[in-house]
Amino acid sequence: MASADDVERKYNLITSRLQEVLGADQIKSILAEGRTPKCYWGTAPTGRPHIGYFVPLIKIADFLRAGVEVKILLADVHAFLDNLKAPLDLVAHRTKYYECILRTVFTSLGIPTSKLTFVKGSEYQLSKDYSLDVYKLSTLVTEHDAKKAGAEVVKQVESPLLSGLLYPGLQALDEQYLDVDFQFGGVDQRKIFTFAELYLPRLGYSKRAHLMNPMVPGLMGGKMSSSDPDSKIDFLDPPEVVKRKIRKAFCEEGNVSENGLLAFLEAVLIPVSQLRLERLRGEGGFDVQEGVGLYKPFVADDAPEGTVFTITREKGGGPSHYKSYEELKDDFAAKKIHPGDLKASVRDAIISLLGPIQATFLENEECKQAERLAYPDPNAKPETKKKKKEKVYHPPPPGKGKNVQLPSQTSGNLEP
Amino acid sequence: MASADDVERKYNLITSRLQEVLGADQIKSILAEGRTPKCYWGTAPTGRPHIGYFVPLIKIADFLRAGVEVKILLADVHAFLDNLKAPLDLVAHRTKYYECILRTVFTSLGIPTSKLTFVKGSEYQLSKDYSLDVYKLSTLVTEHDAKKAGAEVVKQVESPLLSGLLYPGLQALDEQYLDVDFQFGGVDQRKIFTFAELYLPRLGYSKRAHLMNPMVPGLMGGKMSSSDPDSKIDFLDPPEVVKRKIRKAFCEEGNVSENGLLAFLEAVLIPVSQLRLERLRGEGGFDVQEGVGLYKPFVADDAPEGTVFTITREKGGGPSHYKSYEELKDDFAAKKIHPGDLKASVRDAIISLLGPIQATFLENEECKQAERLAYPDPNAKPETKKKKKEKVYHPPPPGKGKNVQLPSQTSGNLEP
Repeated sequence: MASADDVERKYNLITSRLQEVLGADQIKSILAEGRTPKCYWGTAPTGRPHIGYFVPLIKIADFLRAGVEVKILLADVHAFLDNLKAPLDLVAHRTKYYECILRTVFTSLGIPTSKLTFVKGSEYQLSKDYSLDVYKLSTLVTEHDAKKAGAEVVKQVESPLLSGLLYPGLQALDEQYLDVDFQFGGVDQRKIFTFAELYLPRLGYSKRAHLMNPMVPGLMGGKMSSSDPDSKIDFLDPPEVVKRKIRKAFCEEGNVSENGLLAFLEAVLIPVSQLRLERLRGEGGFDVQEGVGLYKPFVADDAPEGTVFTITREKGGGPSHYKSYEELKDDFAAKKIHPGDLKASVRDAIISLLGPIQATFLENEECKQAERLAYPDPNAKPETKKKKKEKVYHPPPPGKGKNVQLPSQTSGNLEP
Repeated sequence: MASADDVERKYNLITSRLQEVLGADQIKSILAEGRTPKCYWGTAPTGRPHIGYFVPLIKIADFLRAGVEVKILLADVHAFLDNLKAPLDLVAHRTKYYECILRTVFTSLGIPTSKLTFVKGSEYQLSKDYSLDVYKLSTLVTEHDAKKAGAEVVKQVESPLLSGLLYPGLQALDEQYLDVDFQFGGVDQRKIFTFAELYLPRLGYSKRAHLMNPMVPGLMGGKMSSSDPDSKIDFLDPPEVVKRKIRKAFCEEGNVSENGLLAFLEAVLIPVSQLRLERLRGEGGFDVQEGVGLYKPFVADDAPEGTVFTITREKGGGPSHYKSYEELKDDFAAKKIHPGDLKASVRDAIISLLGPIQATFLENEECKQAERLAYPDPNAKPETKKKKKEKVYHPPPPGKGKNVQLPSQTSGNLEP
């Protein structure tokens, strides 16, 4: 049995900043029994992961700090099906690259990864037992219910494909086959989650808890085309590219309702800043390795105690220190923060966030090779005339290439 | 290369009495090249097989006589899914029993079985490659097309299940995984077959030919409830049971349009009678084993040359000998054959047809045990008190128990 204080502390960390928790009692009783909760979050390794992934990852960092056993499902089978043009070996390189980047995010924040495992969908999703369960489920689930469950996640097209109907069932079975206590995702997954809660028990499996992040709008805002290569910031973008992209972001003076920068600030930058502050203060749940994750929070050196974010002013006027996102948002709404200053502060925070990730990544030859093979330069000249006949895969921009309906298995809130 | 005569003879035998052939040229060119055509026919081992199975089996006998390599798919996975209440070991016993009965039908007719193999669906339908192909197909097939393909085979219910949508794709993939040149089935499968012709090439597999039997109405006719145990004649029914059941069959004087006995006579009894005549005449395509299949045709000893069926008259008037089904049907329409005489003649032919099957079956201990285990007596007393708690499976009557939508994988024309 764990102490009530400890249970409460862990439960609060696990559920902080979430929009909704289904099955809170299940999580609490696991903690109260002193057991380790197990969870999974899934993503399909398709396009290049972009910094929108920080949204779920920062939440997963909380799970890991609370001692939760986290499985990240790299849904390679789904990725393969998502674009049948991408051959299996390309998907394998992408899967490797996703693991490299995601793991680096955690280590760069000093988050312990001893309880983090990466599981490939292909490790179990084509097994006999899983396949039989897919068929069993198909004799229980009506078209209507499958369609309803996928309504927010499966691309709605005039002539829906069968894959979109199968999808909710596959995601439900993943909970059983990954042997977890809860699944984490964006609140856009809610119908998929309640579908799983309804159907797993009908197959004789236990009902899992579901933890949902709020939806976070894209970082760039506005109506930028996602075919624009500048519409998403890559984990490996150097500072000058981040600067160029942020400059293009939609950010209107006083407009807080359509502002991707503010959304990213709330969902990622302030939590990261808080993590860094806690790490500096020597609080628990961090990797004990000397120096790991010891990076500056997004707070000026002379900021008062309790500050979580500092807005610097380029054209004079001195910095403003904020103890919460709400304060900062209110100042922006009141036009006390100029869009240029918000952009500059967010830009600097992102560059500070990516720096250690890129440094760690670039030290790892295996990861660098995976990245090169996963997203070959479409403009690269073929090495020899003979090789010219081989098909060069032209990767779609992240989040694109959806010519099939089986959606990426993600938490949904991945559009920065 | 085969001789043109030989090609024609084999092609005619393969396609005799069929309602429709899609891909005739494919079959002809395989024969012309001197290769052995390979085909499959599938059935799900669910309820007790009844003598309606003779309809496809007599056609399969033609394939075997023409040298075709025949695979009978015993779709055990489908059978399991068809009624999740039936545990896997029960399905295994039923699969064994189906194989016993079907094999016995061929040997009792002197049909060579060296090119006949039985394949269980579970041997490949849960494999990785097959499962991946199911998912690939699901990214290509729309709900609308899947529904259309299954319209005549999948039970149409208000709230359709996903299994019914998956079904056409699974049956298409079976053609590839069983490595056949054509699939055989009832003409009710036509939309499933054209679906397979459309989609297999989209997966990079070859388009197969499709041979279709006409639909044959149930032997008992009328509105008999299929929950009536007397509504179907079992392969193992002794003569007195056959007599009782035939007595109940719907058979109206002069009515040839609603007459299951005439339909069975045309589709099964006359072809069997012809087989027996050909065997007696020492024609080709039979098992060379001495005596095997040497049974009396359904023709009186003193019938003129060319007779394929004799109607005997119980209340005097002498027998009528028919050289074709058409002649017999015309006489029945003209009320020259009394329903009682038709019943008696059909009854005797069925008893003569089942006799050697039952004799062979009863010599085989393994088959007898499979039958006992496959369809345990629902009224049997549990052996001990302790065993009482074990669930006794109450089998639905043949063709029933469809509480799930994945249909039996059959040629469709199996309702006698």
